[in-house]
Amino acid sequence: MPEHNLPSLNPPKRILMGPGPSDTHPRVLAALGAPTVGHLDPYFLQVMNETQVMLRQVFRTQNALTLAVSGTGSAGMETCVVNLIEPGDKMLVCVNGVFGGRMADVAGRAGAQVTTIERPFGEVFPTEQVAEAVNRVKPKVVGIIHAETSTGALQPLPEISKVVHAAGALLLADTVTSLGGTPVEVDGWQLDAVYSGTQKCLSCPPGLAPVTFSPRAVAAIDARKSKVASWYLDMTMVRNYWGQDRAYHHTAPINMNYALREALAVAVEEGLEARFARHTRNHLALKAGIMALGLKYAVAEGIQTPMLNAVVIPGGVDDLKVRQQLLNEFGIEIGGGLGPMKGKTWRIGLMGETSNPRNVLLLLAALERCLGDQGAKCPAGAGVAAANEFYRRNA
Amino acid sequence: MPEHNLPSLNPPKRILMGPGPSDTHPRVLAALGAPTVGHLDPYFLQVMNETQVMLRQVFRTQNALTLAVSGTGSAGMETCVVNLIEPGDKMLVCVNGVFGGRMADVAGRAGAQVTTIERPFGEVFPTEQVAEAVNRVKPKVVGIIHAETSTGALQPLPEISKVVHAAGALLLADTVTSLGGTPVEVDGWQLDAVYSGTQKCLSCPPGLAPVTFSPRAVAAIDARKSKVASWYLDMTMVRNYWGQDRAYHHTAPINMNYALREALAVAVEEGLEARFARHTRNHLALKAGIMALGLKYAVAEGIQTPMLNAVVIPGGVDDLKVRQQLLNEFGIEIGGGLGPMKGKTWRIGLMGETSNPRNVLLLLAALERCLGDQGAKCPAGAGVAAANEFYRRNA
Repeated sequence: MPEHNLPSLNPPKRILMGPGPSDTHPRVLAALGAPTVGHLDPYFLQVMNETQVMLRQVFRTQNALTLAVSGTGSAGMETCVVNLIEPGDKMLVCVNGVFGGRMADVAGRAGAQVTTIERPFGEVFPTEQVAEAVNRVKPKVVGIIHAETSTGALQPLPEISKVVHAAGALLLADTVTSLGGTPVEVDGWQLDAVYSGTQKCLSCPPGLAPVTFSPRAVAAIDARKSKVASWYLDMTMVRNYWGQDRAYHHTAPINMNYALREALAVAVEEGLEARFARHTRNHLALKAGIMALGLKYAVAEGIQTPMLNAVVIPGGVDDLKVRQQLLNEFGIEIGGGLGPMKGKTWRIGLMGETSNPRNVLLLLAALERCLGDQGAKCPAGAGVAAANEFYRRNA
Repeated sequence: MPEHNLPSLNPPKRILMGPGPSDTHPRVLAALGAPTVGHLDPYFLQVMNETQVMLRQVFRTQNALTLAVSGTGSAGMETCVVNLIEPGDKMLVCVNGVFGGRMADVAGRAGAQVTTIERPFGEVFPTEQVAEAVNRVKPKVVGIIHAETSTGALQPLPEISKVVHAAGALLLADTVTSLGGTPVEVDGWQLDAVYSGTQKCLSCPPGLAPVTFSPRAVAAIDARKSKVASWYLDMTMVRNYWGQDRAYHHTAPINMNYALREALAVAVEEGLEARFARHTRNHLALKAGIMALGLKYAVAEGIQTPMLNAVVIPGGVDDLKVRQQLLNEFGIEIGGGLGPMKGKTWRIGLMGETSNPRNVLLLLAALERCLGDQGAKCPAGAGVAAANEFYRRNA
């Protein structure tokens, strides 16, 4: 020792236009690098309180049990599943993409009797299909993805929530990609267990998973006969640290919680309605440009998420070469397809801080260049022109 | 909306002398606040590689399966347990503090047939006691805590490792508090599954859990008949993201991994032997001062950890008042006792960056003040004088 000395970390400045992480606000990065305090320090307890208040605002809920799990979005998924499911419980999972499939896997590991219903990637579930399955299976929990990050499809939830509750089941919803970018009405839609991630439309680096549980879900947790399978994610203990008791459970990721607090403050200051409108406006401008370049969306009109644009890769164009050129020449990250969409779609994110006209125009300009280098025929300048025209008309 | 605007986060600058988190190096905080890149960005993959190389150095192992779990130290504990244990497997857990008790709880939730052996808080296990239990129970896995964070007792592991392996079991060791502050010889002691945390002697904020698995442990994982109970912590998938495939599993906490990379670089540059010597020297100086103040250690001579000093609270002194005065007047955090030690001991950490003569002298000076304010009789200036004398003799 020392075996070798490494120079200080010096990451490149990307524009993050993939499926997450998204770009961060300077306030959030500054918060991340602020001095660490202890996990029971009065200042940190205040940060936790502020975070809970703002999480409830962003989730649009009064749920007492609303907090940030000390893991990424997938840990949020596992938290919701393992707290609601006891071995042998029936769970219905709606699978129309990679993350629905993941939830079914998580549920199986938790000991659930899992039934899945399916839609092709890129489609969403009609209420009737869920109603039929719920009445047939009579599950304790129904799991569904609000915005499928693998496909960019937005699942309407209010009607499904009604049929799930009519059958006496709990509704567990994944809002990893949707929260903070499009309405998520936890109380209004009567969602029972909801998780998200920090690195999408909240524009905080990945590392925490906001979750919220309705009083009905809390009653189900309190009625458990067995311990939650995961000690780390056990809400019956974690809630005592986030609640009045402040009972030590595990050492919270202090600086990540700083960052989430700051990202939520930025979102709340903008205002949720203004934030949703911004996401929609930039999505529509990008779409105008994408279509003017002769490209197509992978998801039907009407169910496209505003924060994640899944675009069909034109025939003859090399997926990886385009993404590498975007990264290496322009410092722009976009995402490739996931699962059966691999090599077939690009996933262009306009999430949180990333969602702005500057990025829309730059992406369209750079994409035109990359497509041209691949021999694809795009009307010159058409993408940028169409986006500019959209912005002009919708100023 | 906006419901209210929060001022930017502005945490106080503490001196973290509790059981963790510890103080951070400025390079680590700078890394935390560096621009986020994507989890498949070539730059991030390089950071992961560098992290793995340095984790192997710090763990003193050649283990291929060495990485940072995307959760805190307790998630590292759960990772080791759930990957090695299948329902019905026998696990022996050695409990001499809160964290051994926690491991038994985690193992039970994972479906293990758990047998515990116990020592009073503050003691460590003699080899014979473990040998007797291993030969009686014939477990698949034996779990033990290297440095009990609840008591400050350091458990010798080499001989225990021999009896565990002689009985054909795997040895799972908690090095949350020890790693980076006192020797942890994963290969030398033949430890099979080892986890740690970032916020102790590595001096990185909490949020990640370094883990390493021996080839024997990997063989046990590969021989599983059932899926790992936790999807999030499933090493059979996570290793494909940290390995050559770079297969997407979950979105890694990018900035936390920046911070760990940087903290490891700082540790490797210092050199592990120099780092251990520094921890020992400051521990001994503090101890000289503590004893000169008339206080006693809660753990016997010879098994005291150098990074965590458990000190008996003198009769008539108010635990909470002293800790609050230290925090409010001097910005110093020390820890209270945990479990049955609550109200009976203070836990004074000298971990990582916190372990330096400046903090030792300041703590002794401030503690003398607080004890005096409580009416305790301390020889005036004796703590500081004894520590200075120790440093002078051991320059």
